[in-house]
Amino acid sequence: MASGKPASGEDSLIARYFRPIATDPGAFQLDDDAAALRANGDDIVVTTDAIVEGVHFLPDDPPDTIARKALRVNLSDLAAKGATPAGFVLTLALRSADEGWLQPFATALGEDAAQFGCPLLGGDTVSTPGPAMISVTAFGRVPAGKMVHRSGARPGERVMVTGTIGDAALGLAVLKGGKVHAAASDAAARAMLVGRYRVPQPRVRLAEIVRAHASAAMDVSDGLAGDLAKLCGVSGVSAVIDLASIPLSDAARDLVSRGVVGVEALIAGGDDYEILCTIPEDRVEAFAAAAESVGIAVSSIGTVVGGTSAPKFIDQQGREVALERLSYSHF
Amino acid sequence: MASGKPASGEDSLIARYFRPIATDPGAFQLDDDAAALRANGDDIVVTTDAIVEGVHFLPDDPPDTIARKALRVNLSDLAAKGATPAGFVLTLALRSADEGWLQPFATALGEDAAQFGCPLLGGDTVSTPGPAMISVTAFGRVPAGKMVHRSGARPGERVMVTGTIGDAALGLAVLKGGKVHAAASDAAARAMLVGRYRVPQPRVRLAEIVRAHASAAMDVSDGLAGDLAKLCGVSGVSAVIDLASIPLSDAARDLVSRGVVGVEALIAGGDDYEILCTIPEDRVEAFAAAAESVGIAVSSIGTVVGGTSAPKFIDQQGREVALERLSYSHF
Repeated sequence: MASGKPASGEDSLIARYFRPIATDPGAFQLDDDAAALRANGDDIVVTTDAIVEGVHFLPDDPPDTIARKALRVNLSDLAAKGATPAGFVLTLALRSADEGWLQPFATALGEDAAQFGCPLLGGDTVSTPGPAMISVTAFGRVPAGKMVHRSGARPGERVMVTGTIGDAALGLAVLKGGKVHAAASDAAARAMLVGRYRVPQPRVRLAEIVRAHASAAMDVSDGLAGDLAKLCGVSGVSAVIDLASIPLSDAARDLVSRGVVGVEALIAGGDDYEILCTIPEDRVEAFAAAAESVGIAVSSIGTVVGGTSAPKFIDQQGREVALERLSYSHF
Repeated sequence: MASGKPASGEDSLIARYFRPIATDPGAFQLDDDAAALRANGDDIVVTTDAIVEGVHFLPDDPPDTIARKALRVNLSDLAAKGATPAGFVLTLALRSADEGWLQPFATALGEDAAQFGCPLLGGDTVSTPGPAMISVTAFGRVPAGKMVHRSGARPGERVMVTGTIGDAALGLAVLKGGKVHAAASDAAARAMLVGRYRVPQPRVRLAEIVRAHASAAMDVSDGLAGDLAKLCGVSGVSAVIDLASIPLSDAARDLVSRGVVGVEALIAGGDDYEILCTIPEDRVEAFAAAAESVGIAVSSIGTVVGGTSAPKFIDQQGREVALERLSYSHF
């Protein structure tokens, strides 16, 4: 992203919509080929996630929610790694430069960048005849060597998760119509679920707390069951999860209690962007108190155990529940 | 990019093709949500460039050349900023996971990563019904505060450029058929021009030399004329360029001398990935000698002058040549 003279189409697009939100000194007003993250002794944590029209967002989704989701799915990764946001770069692949779309997109992106302290540092704008795609690479800072990994879970530790699980998958189901839309007859409940799909709530305020207490962490993006299996696999452990302790919103609980969806479907649905982490038993209390102090609910959902088998999910009668599907996969 | 158990389609794709080339310790074997660039006191320079099928590469281009181009256009940016490569992340948007395409793509990417000392740190793989797109965000290191900007050019300095200009634009013209293909009757010349389009030669070895000598620099990606105008615009200066001194390959010079193309078209064509820089007069000799010592040809093509008018291009008779088009624009 760069703009000088003379202004070509791409350059004036950048100047008009994105320069006003690129206020960090390291962005050089988007006038250069590159940005700079100044050295301050911290490691730089790097994460990249792309969202594609028709896959991660719907063609009719409002541009402001698309912008927020593109950034927030990356902020969620940084938080799970214990990293404080430092900035991001953006690749926008669009069919056309539609002002009615770009203006609210850029405005919302700027608002989120300011809210989460993660400034736009640069990017690239390309035209494509295909579906729109927004790729974000985000940077965070951690003290040297202190990034929280997926690989640190140890038997005996508590498995914990933030917020509620399954709302975003239900929100997508509402948008697609069908039985969930029909069953979620309360407009406020429907709006909440759709909002959770369109605009994730990255747990940025939990980053330092995760760093202080978690032995392993990741964000839940492809479904709690599958993501837990990944964390356990990399850590060389297994887990036993109590299905009844999976935190659900009132709207989700209502749908489960009426038999519209099963909790198994909710933990295999994606787009939660909550933090899944393992906490040593003697730190659980301090972790929960610190999370509460920043207004983030955390729930204990099970225990890390030894072995390399897939995590087990146990119902209220103590029976293991087989899951047909663990997570969403692109291919 | 992350893979644990159980392997989903996306995860096994990553494990199979990309984990073998993600050998840097900061990539955590692609087993985590994020990578880490370890603090060593340097600033981190960040650049991002995407290439789209049908726009920046052709559907029939070999997958190995597409991989190399995706990485090299970013390495070119780093070199122009005086930065030593430190790693990159990749977003691959593909219609399908075709092994016959992915294997040579990943192998070539790994070879280039090793050759240029720029390891794969992570990425994201998404499916798209549209054209393939490869977005790379690359990182480089410079001593604190030492990134080379576009904005430092001052009147009286020399305008210099590496390599030769216009070959890639001619290579694209060859691939598209038409008069350039017909005129470039020598198969070796055609192959050279196509090779320059498909596989840029980033001037990575010049990075430290640019940092030591250049007052301003950028890479030439959208056409020399337009890119020079951008550099001058940001620096608040103008320039006078001697068209006869623009460095051309033998193949390009032959086509110009036979009237097939004009030099104006070559300096408005894109995809050169050479370095354009301004060098204070008293450093020109040292810059040229240092460039020669790493085997990179540099040419003096004009002078920075005061004022804010567009750069002037002068022919051998000293007349100003008007350019119809300065550069390629996506919108």
